[in-house]
Amino acid sequence: VRIVVNGHPREARAVQWEDDAVLAVDQRMLPDRVALARLETVDAVADAIRTMIVRGAPTIGATAAYGMALAAIAGEDLAASRAKLAASRPTARDLFAALAHMDLALAHGRDPLAAASGYADDVVARCVAIGEHGLDAIPDGARVLTHCHAGALAAVDVGTALAPIRLAHASGRHVFAWVDETRPRLQGRITAWELAGEGIPHALIADNAAGHFMARGEVDVVIVGADRIAANGDVANKIGTYTKAVLAQRHGIPFYVAAPRTTFDAATRTGADIPIEERDAGELGGGTARNPAFDVTPAGLVTGYVTEAGILRPEDLKRSTGLAAAWTREP
Amino acid sequence: VRIVVNGHPREARAVQWEDDAVLAVDQRMLPDRVALARLETVDAVADAIRTMIVRGAPTIGATAAYGMALAAIAGEDLAASRAKLAASRPTARDLFAALAHMDLALAHGRDPLAAASGYADDVVARCVAIGEHGLDAIPDGARVLTHCHAGALAAVDVGTALAPIRLAHASGRHVFAWVDETRPRLQGRITAWELAGEGIPHALIADNAAGHFMARGEVDVVIVGADRIAANGDVANKIGTYTKAVLAQRHGIPFYVAAPRTTFDAATRTGADIPIEERDAGELGGGTARNPAFDVTPAGLVTGYVTEAGILRPEDLKRSTGLAAAWTREP
Repeated sequence: VRIVVNGHPREARAVQWEDDAVLAVDQRMLPDRVALARLETVDAVADAIRTMIVRGAPTIGATAAYGMALAAIAGEDLAASRAKLAASRPTARDLFAALAHMDLALAHGRDPLAAASGYADDVVARCVAIGEHGLDAIPDGARVLTHCHAGALAAVDVGTALAPIRLAHASGRHVFAWVDETRPRLQGRITAWELAGEGIPHALIADNAAGHFMARGEVDVVIVGADRIAANGDVANKIGTYTKAVLAQRHGIPFYVAAPRTTFDAATRTGADIPIEERDAGELGGGTARNPAFDVTPAGLVTGYVTEAGILRPEDLKRSTGLAAAWTREP
Repeated sequence: VRIVVNGHPREARAVQWEDDAVLAVDQRMLPDRVALARLETVDAVADAIRTMIVRGAPTIGATAAYGMALAAIAGEDLAASRAKLAASRPTARDLFAALAHMDLALAHGRDPLAAASGYADDVVARCVAIGEHGLDAIPDGARVLTHCHAGALAAVDVGTALAPIRLAHASGRHVFAWVDETRPRLQGRITAWELAGEGIPHALIADNAAGHFMARGEVDVVIVGADRIAANGDVANKIGTYTKAVLAQRHGIPFYVAAPRTTFDAATRTGADIPIEERDAGELGGGTARNPAFDVTPAGLVTGYVTEAGILRPEDLKRSTGLAAAWTREP
């Protein structure tokens, strides 16, 4: 994405390698303030994931890959480094996919930085393909609702749920985006900021308002990202996603989940097996509170999974003993 | 409610008459700061309603009644005063019920203050009865979800949706309240503050999280207030209420609407005829936004209406040509 840091415009990915360190766009103060965080140690990388300097499953994965590269280049204990990164956040599947990718690369003696950069580049390539396949879900004139932030900063670049919206707009289709504010962390503001940057018509709404606009017939399709997709197609994504899926079903609105292969987890049987992170009550202003960061949307509420290999239907997942058979090639 | 203002504890209603003026609890900074607003003119009263110093349909109604008393005592133009108050907020039925009550009282030469105070006392008496009838909806051990703020400050005193929860707790039943944060104005924090003041176990949650806890079987019943109930039983209430009703239906959870007779509007045929206030985008932090303050929950999603005359079923409303026949006595 194009950002302006201290008055200087530049292009940046959500996370990248620059001057011997991991450079991440600090998403905590967006859209009010754009800053870059320079992460020079594995501890700093794990902290950046935990404190949500970086967000979004694909970006979290790429950040962890770069973290392992940092550790390998510095000659640190790889097992300990891996453990720190694996413990940073529990839900995003991509974190573990990235660590597995780095395990394999380092075990085979590949260059650590090339392996991490390759992982990040691959995420971007997958997002581009997701955008192309997702175009089928966005007819001209579509009013698309999205939840949380599944844009460029959430997926290294380009984005998952936002990829087809971007491409639809760029290819001349009329598209309008309803942007859930997404409490408690208000990631919708980042989504709105990305859309505004590309001149895509949109409106930010309270999470409470999505049902109202659906009931009025003003929402044509829902597209969200995912943090982990179980073998049976159940989807863990930002808290509130399940609610939007239930509302979409009631109103006969197609509900799509856009995610790269790295978000699918054949080893997790159903949504009930996905660990759901519970974050600090302070995110809700304190007091006695409960604050789950994710929820599970059952496969039965999903119209299709927009992947780099095309749009998969829940039946496609059910037909195999897991997801593996739904993919034609290994990562 | 018991409040502490500038270090001095005192009892206060949401709105009352004191020293020749209308005294309202300023709800804008709650729960962080408790302040009282002294309203000495009809303009100040209308502003207090518009700027949400006072909130909640029954409190808005009582505030308007006191506003008319102010106007009558000061010898101001009653029609102009009424018009100012009627234009303050469009959705709450109680505002218009209170103005009609004052029209009649003043036309019959009743003492303006006695008429307004009588209206306010009547609201409290209705809330007490709502609490008693609502007990049937809250079995021992119930985990009750509520949306927005339908507590003492929303209904002069005692509250509507919170009345049965309070009474259940006071009568020794175990009751736990899930409190929707209720963006954009975060009225859930006021609900949590009222519950904490009475030692009622509760947890504040993001609006996005209600579906998650329902899916986990941790919500037994939903009780909300209402701003206006149409003749067919459709309910206008704080934005997000409809979403909670849809979720409750999916999970087989009873969904109750607690409201006094003054919230029922026989003259409004269906929810589609209820004007929905759209507030400033600034409440969402600015940018391009849409911000409806209310939504409509169709009668088909309502298990029962907890009123001062007992729990009415949607069928009770349908059996009559409107609501009138569902009531055994006039206001």
